[in-house]
Amino acid sequence: MRDLRALGAEVGRGVEWFYRPRSVAVIGASTRPGKVGHECLRSLLSSGFRGKVYPVNPRADEVLGLKAYPSILDVPGQVDLAVLAIPSRAAPQVMEQCARKGVRAVVIISGGFKEAGPEGEVLQERIVEIARRHGIRIIGPNCIGVFDGHSRVDTTFQSHERMGRPKPGSIAFLSQSGTFGATFLDWAAAEGVGVSRFASLGNRADVDEADMIAYLARDPDTRVVAIYMESFTDARALMDAIRSSPKPVLIFKSGRTQAGAKAAASHTGRLAGSYEIARSALAQAGALVLDSVGELYGAAKALALQPPFASGGVAMVTNGAGPCVMAADYLYESGIELATFSPEIREELRERLPGYALVSDPVVDLTGSATTSDYMASLETLARDPNVGLLAVFVVFQDTPLEDDFTARLAEFDSRGKPVLVFAAGGEYTARKRRELDSSGIPTYDDVRELAAAIRALRWWAGRRAGPPGLSVPRISD
Amino acid sequence: MRDLRALGAEVGRGVEWFYRPRSVAVIGASTRPGKVGHECLRSLLSSGFRGKVYPVNPRADEVLGLKAYPSILDVPGQVDLAVLAIPSRAAPQVMEQCARKGVRAVVIISGGFKEAGPEGEVLQERIVEIARRHGIRIIGPNCIGVFDGHSRVDTTFQSHERMGRPKPGSIAFLSQSGTFGATFLDWAAAEGVGVSRFASLGNRADVDEADMIAYLARDPDTRVVAIYMESFTDARALMDAIRSSPKPVLIFKSGRTQAGAKAAASHTGRLAGSYEIARSALAQAGALVLDSVGELYGAAKALALQPPFASGGVAMVTNGAGPCVMAADYLYESGIELATFSPEIREELRERLPGYALVSDPVVDLTGSATTSDYMASLETLARDPNVGLLAVFVVFQDTPLEDDFTARLAEFDSRGKPVLVFAAGGEYTARKRRELDSSGIPTYDDVRELAAAIRALRWWAGRRAGPPGLSVPRISD
Repeated sequence: MRDLRALGAEVGRGVEWFYRPRSVAVIGASTRPGKVGHECLRSLLSSGFRGKVYPVNPRADEVLGLKAYPSILDVPGQVDLAVLAIPSRAAPQVMEQCARKGVRAVVIISGGFKEAGPEGEVLQERIVEIARRHGIRIIGPNCIGVFDGHSRVDTTFQSHERMGRPKPGSIAFLSQSGTFGATFLDWAAAEGVGVSRFASLGNRADVDEADMIAYLARDPDTRVVAIYMESFTDARALMDAIRSSPKPVLIFKSGRTQAGAKAAASHTGRLAGSYEIARSALAQAGALVLDSVGELYGAAKALALQPPFASGGVAMVTNGAGPCVMAADYLYESGIELATFSPEIREELRERLPGYALVSDPVVDLTGSATTSDYMASLETLARDPNVGLLAVFVVFQDTPLEDDFTARLAEFDSRGKPVLVFAAGGEYTARKRRELDSSGIPTYDDVRELAAAIRALRWWAGRRAGPPGLSVPRISD
Repeated sequence: MRDLRALGAEVGRGVEWFYRPRSVAVIGASTRPGKVGHECLRSLLSSGFRGKVYPVNPRADEVLGLKAYPSILDVPGQVDLAVLAIPSRAAPQVMEQCARKGVRAVVIISGGFKEAGPEGEVLQERIVEIARRHGIRIIGPNCIGVFDGHSRVDTTFQSHERMGRPKPGSIAFLSQSGTFGATFLDWAAAEGVGVSRFASLGNRADVDEADMIAYLARDPDTRVVAIYMESFTDARALMDAIRSSPKPVLIFKSGRTQAGAKAAASHTGRLAGSYEIARSALAQAGALVLDSVGELYGAAKALALQPPFASGGVAMVTNGAGPCVMAADYLYESGIELATFSPEIREELRERLPGYALVSDPVVDLTGSATTSDYMASLETLARDPNVGLLAVFVVFQDTPLEDDFTARLAEFDSRGKPVLVFAAGGEYTARKRRELDSSGIPTYDDVRELAAAIRALRWWAGRRAGPPGLSVPRISD
């Protein structure tokens, strides 16, 4: 299946047509709400995409207020991107029509291909063969498609009521699993975190992670690439793409065990290999391998919103020290330095802070009596300490003495180029305060393990930028 | 400090006065909103507590509409519970007054004791000495106090706007850290999960986890005890209490590393010991040791709401298989059996389910086209399989083909005594659907690691009930 690459075809070629199409046809645009093709069309119409959109449905004159065409060949004018929501047995014929129409990219939402057994596998091979012959790129089959935070192309079949759409931003997210794809978009939208490009890759019959990383390497909107994967398609191309990426590539790989690999094989038609081999190959190529989907998302957020963690140690400021104990555990285990405050900084903290504050590096514990001003005094002082390279701010928003202006004042805080991350866990009020911070560019975490992974990612990237991968990269995580 | 225990004093004696007081005095009830003493009083008045409440404040006639008294000695009638929100140096004198008044239990919210240095340590020793002399029990100092889901006693200083109060239920939660205490209450309230008793234990100058476990053992409202701790006070009493507990005791222990232990010591004045020794001692005594606060909460929810996982393997039903791959990984690593479906059940699934469904045990993948009826047909069939002992239901609520009635129909589902747990991750819509399930008694998870920990807990408890701890308990987690 990787034959074209073996012949020297460029990895990443044509991927831009998924994100910058001038026109999109939805083939199988049902008139019935809830049906996948209907919902894909609705997404394209409601996410802010400004190109032309054509429903294709031989049994309807009109879908969602747009004129419907019996086949893609009947659509007037050029179609750059086709979205297929049709039974798999009809796919080869429709692919031939797409080729005749000059379509450049096809998203196949439908299942019923390789993941469904030998017949599906034959169908998948046929559509790939047609695509290769005509230079068409395919994302899928068996996926939720693509979303672009900037052009607002959106082929997902999740309604806006049920899944949020993130604002424009700089995180690219690729997922073999549609489920985690939807989860990621929903998380980012709920927190006010911006996304550049998103792709649910499904069976990866054609476009795979290597193509995407190569494309994203030259995408001006993307700062960080986050990938959920269960198995490799073309390991060599993937490692090459990671090695060449000027941007951080973060990966969570599922299907670590025999049982997980079996589950993976049955839903995307591919066997996962040995986890440890995969993990170390990815790390050697220069990716950061995370341990959960939450860590992957949290690390991507940190790299998108904050500068790298170049030197010094982690300082913590809190109004409730429990999470600092956990963070100290995780950071210590990762080999991350915890700050020892400079003597003059320690002195200044004692002078500026009220009597209830406990200063014991790396923690400034303002206790439950903390006010916003106590936090700001601590952070301003610590930002000037050359021994401090990153400010981890822990907040019990539930504690009533803390004023409501905390988030606004932290958003204005000048950290002197040092990364700032926030931990806060709780219910609705805390979620609202977290969203205020995330959407103003300060990443927040409600799981200490995810906070620690984000700090590790900022440290890793500072080292990775300093030299070629595999050579001078500090092995922080392993 | 454990002298009375050494003399044979009963562990757990008098703890009921924290949860069933007829009257409560708040000493240091400030007139200023946002002040700790003011907010404690407000909590007692607004959480539904039906006993008498007395503000004590020598500089006010009235606080929050109630007559204020200059000292506790001026309060008419009996005071069972006193809540202290006063400077630590005033505590010994106030404790003497409490003793004269016949107070039975004291919650000391204030800090400034052992965690603050040698002077504070002396103060702490003095108040404990007074309490012991008069048979008064103390929770704290340096804590957020107690909350009772049934009697609605509530001494926390977090406003209702910022922190939810859970409904009555059967989880008891104990936390050395006030922060995780507040987080836990907030999580439970947001999800509609019920709580029996809550205590933030802080410095644990007197009442510790052993006292609480012994008290909860005979508390009819409590089904499961969940504990966040960083260090031990009296390890032998703790192990004895766990060993005697007829209810599951779940523990997350922070302060695992040198760095974490240092952070723990500086905020609650105690050094944490070696993590591995502590972990294995706790497990041998018969507790289940979890790996994060989220796992602790998730496992408690499962044990409170679902029957034990007695036999057979885990079956998974999903409309998006990514999380099943991860779950298979975690369960396999924990030695939990994944179900092999009986041949007749496999056959029946093929007959009852539509063509897009992929059956490959332990997973029934209904794909993104899944409807509520597909889920119900799968679950009804699997519940009849003797090889299936637990139903793990994975739901992409974002997928539009799934009808809105899913949660109501699952809540009515008869699982034939087998535990049912749900995984779903996403933004606001998903959070709403999760809450519908949690509040109807089906525990939900948005982190696969936490789901796996909950399954492990149900399995562990089935084994633990079968025989004495340390003997026939299957060691699933280690």
